[in-house]
Amino acid sequence: MPNLKDALSTAISDQGFRRSAGRAADELRQIRFTRHYTKHAEGSVLVEFGDTRVLCTASVENSVPRFLKGKGEGWITAEYSMLPRATHTRNDREASRGKQGGRTLEIQRLIGRSLRAMVDLKKLGENTITIDCDVLQADGGTRTAAITGGAVALVDAFSHMLKRKTIKQDPLKHLVAAVSVGIVKGVPVLDLDYEEDSGCDTDMNVVMTQLGGFVEMQGTAEGKSFSRQEADSMLILAEQGIQALIAKQQEALGW
Amino acid sequence: MPNLKDALSTAISDQGFRRSAGRAADELRQIRFTRHYTKHAEGSVLVEFGDTRVLCTASVENSVPRFLKGKGEGWITAEYSMLPRATHTRNDREASRGKQGGRTLEIQRLIGRSLRAMVDLKKLGENTITIDCDVLQADGGTRTAAITGGAVALVDAFSHMLKRKTIKQDPLKHLVAAVSVGIVKGVPVLDLDYEEDSGCDTDMNVVMTQLGGFVEMQGTAEGKSFSRQEADSMLILAEQGIQALIAKQQEALGW
Amino acid sequence: MPNLKDALSTAISDQGFRRSAGRAADELRQIRFTRHYTKHAEGSVLVEFGDTRVLCTASVENSVPRFLKGKGEGWITAEYSMLPRATHTRNDREASRGKQGGRTLEIQRLIGRSLRAMVDLKKLGENTITIDCDVLQADGGTRTAAITGGAVALVDAFSHMLKRKTIKQDPLKHLVAAVSVGIVKGVPVLDLDYEEDSGCDTDMNVVMTQLGGFVEMQGTAEGKSFSRQEADSMLILAEQGIQALIAKQQEALGW
Amino acid sequence: MPNLKDALSTAISDQGFRRSAGRAADELRQIRFTRHYTKHAEGSVLVEFGDTRVLCTASVENSVPRFLKGKGEGWITAEYSMLPRATHTRNDREASRGKQGGRTLEIQRLIGRSLRAMVDLKKLGENTITIDCDVLQADGGTRTAAITGGAVALVDAFSHMLKRKTIKQDPLKHLVAAVSVGIVKGVPVLDLDYEEDSGCDTDMNVVMTQLGGFVEMQGTAEGKSFSRQEADSMLILAEQGIQALIAKQQEALGW
Amino acid sequence: MPNLKDALSTAISDQGFRRSAGRAADELRQIRFTRHYTKHAEGSVLVEFGDTRVLCTASVENSVPRFLKGKGEGWITAEYSMLPRATHTRNDREASRGKQGGRTLEIQRLIGRSLRAMVDLKKLGENTITIDCDVLQADGGTRTAAITGGAVALVDAFSHMLKRKTIKQDPLKHLVAAVSVGIVKGVPVLDLDYEEDSGCDTDMNVVMTQLGGFVEMQGTAEGKSFSRQEADSMLILAEQGIQALIAKQQEALGW
Amino acid sequence: MPNLKDALSTAISDQGFRRSAGRAADELRQIRFTRHYTKHAEGSVLVEFGDTRVLCTASVENSVPRFLKGKGEGWITAEYSMLPRATHTRNDREASRGKQGGRTLEIQRLIGRSLRAMVDLKKLGENTITIDCDVLQADGGTRTAAITGGAVALVDAFSHMLKRKTIKQDPLKHLVAAVSVGIVKGVPVLDLDYEEDSGCDTDMNVVMTQLGGFVEMQGTAEGKSFSRQEADSMLILAEQGIQALIAKQQEALGW
Repeated sequence: MPNLKDALSTAISDQGFRRSAGRAADELRQIRFTRHYTKHAEGSVLVEFGDTRVLCTASVENSVPRFLKGKGEGWITAEYSMLPRATHTRNDREASRGKQGGRTLEIQRLIGRSLRAMVDLKKLGENTITIDCDVLQADGGTRTAAITGGAVALVDAFSHMLKRKTIKQDPLKHLVAAVSVGIVKGVPVLDLDYEEDSGCDTDMNVVMTQLGGFVEMQGTAEGKSFSRQEADSMLILAEQGIQALIAKQQEALGW
Repeated sequence: MPNLKDALSTAISDQGFRRSAGRAADELRQIRFTRHYTKHAEGSVLVEFGDTRVLCTASVENSVPRFLKGKGEGWITAEYSMLPRATHTRNDREASRGKQGGRTLEIQRLIGRSLRAMVDLKKLGENTITIDCDVLQADGGTRTAAITGGAVALVDAFSHMLKRKTIKQDPLKHLVAAVSVGIVKGVPVLDLDYEEDSGCDTDMNVVMTQLGGFVEMQGTAEGKSFSRQEADSMLILAEQGIQALIAKQQEALGW
Repeated sequence: MPNLKDALSTAISDQGFRRSAGRAADELRQIRFTRHYTKHAEGSVLVEFGDTRVLCTASVENSVPRFLKGKGEGWITAEYSMLPRATHTRNDREASRGKQGGRTLEIQRLIGRSLRAMVDLKKLGENTITIDCDVLQADGGTRTAAITGGAVALVDAFSHMLKRKTIKQDPLKHLVAAVSVGIVKGVPVLDLDYEEDSGCDTDMNVVMTQLGGFVEMQGTAEGKSFSRQEADSMLILAEQGIQALIAKQQEALGW
Repeated sequence: MPNLKDALSTAISDQGFRRSAGRAADELRQIRFTRHYTKHAEGSVLVEFGDTRVLCTASVENSVPRFLKGKGEGWITAEYSMLPRATHTRNDREASRGKQGGRTLEIQRLIGRSLRAMVDLKKLGENTITIDCDVLQADGGTRTAAITGGAVALVDAFSHMLKRKTIKQDPLKHLVAAVSVGIVKGVPVLDLDYEEDSGCDTDMNVVMTQLGGFVEMQGTAEGKSFSRQEADSMLILAEQGIQALIAKQQEALGW
Repeated sequence: MPNLKDALSTAISDQGFRRSAGRAADELRQIRFTRHYTKHAEGSVLVEFGDTRVLCTASVENSVPRFLKGKGEGWITAEYSMLPRATHTRNDREASRGKQGGRTLEIQRLIGRSLRAMVDLKKLGENTITIDCDVLQADGGTRTAAITGGAVALVDAFSHMLKRKTIKQDPLKHLVAAVSVGIVKGVPVLDLDYEEDSGCDTDMNVVMTQLGGFVEMQGTAEGKSFSRQEADSMLILAEQGIQALIAKQQEALGW
Repeated sequence: MPNLKDALSTAISDQGFRRSAGRAADELRQIRFTRHYTKHAEGSVLVEFGDTRVLCTASVENSVPRFLKGKGEGWITAEYSMLPRATHTRNDREASRGKQGGRTLEIQRLIGRSLRAMVDLKKLGENTITIDCDVLQADGGTRTAAITGGAVALVDAFSHMLKRKTIKQDPLKHLVAAVSVGIVKGVPVLDLDYEEDSGCDTDMNVVMTQLGGFVEMQGTAEGKSFSRQEADSMLILAEQGIQALIAKQQEALGW
């Protein structure tokens, strides 16, 4: 669909649209992966999407949840949390309020589903890997950073297990990565930072595999509804962005 | 995009695909709205999508949450719950477990956002309307039925408020409705029942306005990822289905 | 004790006492049982006492609580809840408050004890039946309606189990039913609706078996205390009312 | 009804019925009130019914619950708890389990309602009195001991308030007291200890005022249902027992 | 270090320091142990440090926490609670607030650690003893009273187990006792009551064994920090006080 | 007390005692402070004691807890948490378990008290500063690292407030720092790492001010009790270590 892509460029140039720090509409923020960020976890990656910084650790446990007992399959699950002062103003600590909020639960369910899409659970055997995603600093896109960094931590955990011979075959099917896209002042843009995210009309979180398949596609109209054409523009941007992210994951992994 | 639509018909006819109860791939289940189902609520609608039955009540309260105090705006919020035996096997009651699960919180956030898209919150004044969606019987698509029925309950609540002169102008901007679509054995189908939903590769919940704009678009690959083309087919089905649902809402409302 | 009965009639006629909708002091509201109201549960009965509507489902599970493990006996338990807008003004959802209130726990303990009185737990084998009583609309007497409707749902669950040969013998000993009685403006009346209940001096909930034995008798003075004679009048009314309710249960069951 | 009373005596003598410690069927255990048992509370009474020992404290607070604000009325509420090892085997502490059980909530609601029947809430002004009933040692009848002891603590709190001139008029209408009665091996008996309570067919908790009116009457069939005649026998015993308890309350208060 | 001791006396005499009830700076309040205070527990001691009264019960259970299963060792744990009106003003009941506060958890962890220091856990076998410390009346020093009284209850529980032959050897290594010390208006004092405790600059809780070893030493500056010399003075007072407490424990035990 | 110091050196040299990484008994691990580690908080310090890494943020809020309202004073409070995989094996997330454990609450109370000792709360005005201490990686001494790093974050928050003129005078009285000491295999050592901490007989956490006063002193015998002389040795080590830590705080602050 080249016409959509052109329309996109035109739309941007027409409006003299400028993003913070001079980023182009289809440009990712600076992406960094720091592997082995902490020493105890089987996989531990600090992922940065600009000023958004998420520590993703993968913890291997030799057991499975009750519903999988005896089936010879493994499980991948995720937990997500923001440090209280990861954000502009301090948020109450969920542990002290005594429950996780709806946003937290929704995000960690999304991360878990996304990362399970990477894995052949049969090859994982009766092991559970928990991906903890703790946001040290938030500047928009924490859930997509968590998925993208969590994928790398998961690969490291598989390597660790293979080295220890806890598993015989690599359970990895393919990488996944995630990015947010949105319509900001009428223009489709990639990888929204906090300011763009709070001001945008529509935003969409997209998760895709290394092979170009969609795993998740979650678009939400904040103020006014969005058209089919806007959805298409956003999806094109997301596909591009995710390809770039996967290239960076591979580079970080030394592939 | 007529070619996608044709491809869809072809795909279906080619495979001799048959849905339960002889439904066509692009056919909704039997849809019913029973207004004034209970007597105390300002709006009370039993909505049925086939065997899925959800009681949606709209309760008006003359106050707003703290973050809106003094802003002259109203609020729409939603709560969602399944009766313990709405499903094949009994689920523990969330009240007795002492917390709402992640799925519940995720769904009620979706319902709330979707229904807020219908409303001019300024015209609502400092009033809060809570839409309670209680699933009496579940057979797939409870969240989309809740949104579709909740929209009617909300309209009834507005009428009630206008009659009582609690508000002066109708806060309704336009109706919204929602439907699920999915890829079942390779075929895109509309309005999945429980059996189709549990067996499908991909499913997507779509919320749109009466005017054809998207409010929410949430697609999830269950087993394998889905392609851009599959997403397009699902969106076409959803648009059609939602138009039909909005016609039924209007009929129920006597418009 | 015919003199009490006469005293009762006299008291009523003397005072030109009139109940809402012209009901006599010893007259039940319209009672209806809709069996098989939902499709998944082993027993599912919508019971109506006038405008009070309670959905009672019986769910069979092939296990028993820990304290009964290995004793060859079954268990009957109940849960009770009101939909948030079953009442005049909306009540917070207990699941979202994170705990069940004292009234809820008290009522579900009462329902459980009452329904266990119907059953030979030895004949039930190591099975648990949970009776969920969800109040769709409240207009007084929800706990007595729940017991009366739950009894029918329980009988349906036994039939289901006998048909499936999960059990060999019918565990039913006898039906139970329940009704409220009270002293309204000095007059003993049967089956109080919400308005009568909130205005009365004394109310009593009585549960009896088909054979005329008492299972529960819970009288409470709301404002001023009640005399032994008033207690006697209420008990006579309750006995009568329960006989009528049991006849209606039998009719609903096609006995 | 002298014939019931005779029947009662006969029933007992006929069966050579013997209670533990040689108590007669209509005999209370040793009852003791220790006023000013602790020093901080406005009222503080250790009440003993045989080996059942409950510490009842009355705490005055110069405010009322939200639903009473500005109405010029006061409130009486109660809390009930057992020390973990008040019983034969240790019960988990409710504070560490994170919630109060149904039995606890049911009992504290009963105590609260019973004690409110003693009080002219208008004369109490906008003050709340909380009666804490903590069971130090349990041997049956803890809820009836709590009500009977709590009534004395409440009177002491009123005296304290009158002395401090927090209130001008005594809010006391009349004393209340409570006792349990039951059918043990076919014989109606008064004031059941733990052993009798666990073995009995039926037990009833009765709360009455000093003037002979009923405040609460809660009978429960444990195994088999009970007849109207058994209920009558139990009520006669309860009336007698409560008269004796009120005499002992008065003596403790030095009236 | 006799010079510190002298300095202490001098400091006191110099300042004409007077404690409530004429107590000397190095004088304990009246200490009392009432063994067998309640009848169900294997050990049950009411301990009084002046007006502070704590009921300590020891409950034996024939099992161990999961982390000790199969290791042939036992466990000692403690729970601590204040009755709501043990204090000047009523505190909310932790069971009704739904969680134990930080102070409660901190104290019960301290009691548990302190009492475990008394015991050869191997000789206890796979048994758990729970020491429940319920404060009936608080006047400062509740945690040290709880440890000192709990130690006696634990010894009684061991005797009970030896008599029942649940264990073969006495698991007791040595007694422990605890006392608070503090700097009140510049003077080091022993066994602070509530008034002294709330007004003091520094207080320290010390737990020691019968043999003079330290088990816990917890000093806290309330207002201004304390010097090493002040710490030394407090420790000397504490050692003295604990020796006296252990003598009283032995006397209570009839040793 | 030079003799103790000598005894200490002798004890070490005599036993050929060697610590991991060749550290001397009285040597701190490598200490690092990274100020402005995250960008949103008014103070944000990553503190490292060897492999122990704690992120300490100071958040200023223009209000005080209810008990301080209208008193013209401020408040300092702390929260502490470990990331689930900060440790060798993963710990359940407290937010998902629904409550903070006793250890967490105990530590955050200690941090709060310690940091309040730094501050003239009058000069802080009616502002609250929350110090969040999140352990990214744990290797022993997390609570002492949290206090030492939190102190620096607090100073940064004061500077921020002074610059913004939220306050007029610097509320800082003096720095505080904290360190752990213990008896490992009979030898007193400073700043225990995880391995030393788990194997030691006794450990003590000490908090002191810049001026050499004690704020907290918490010693615990793990296995066997400790003597007065051992306590003295540990306190000497702690004083030394804290002086060194305060020098490093000053260096980090550029003083």
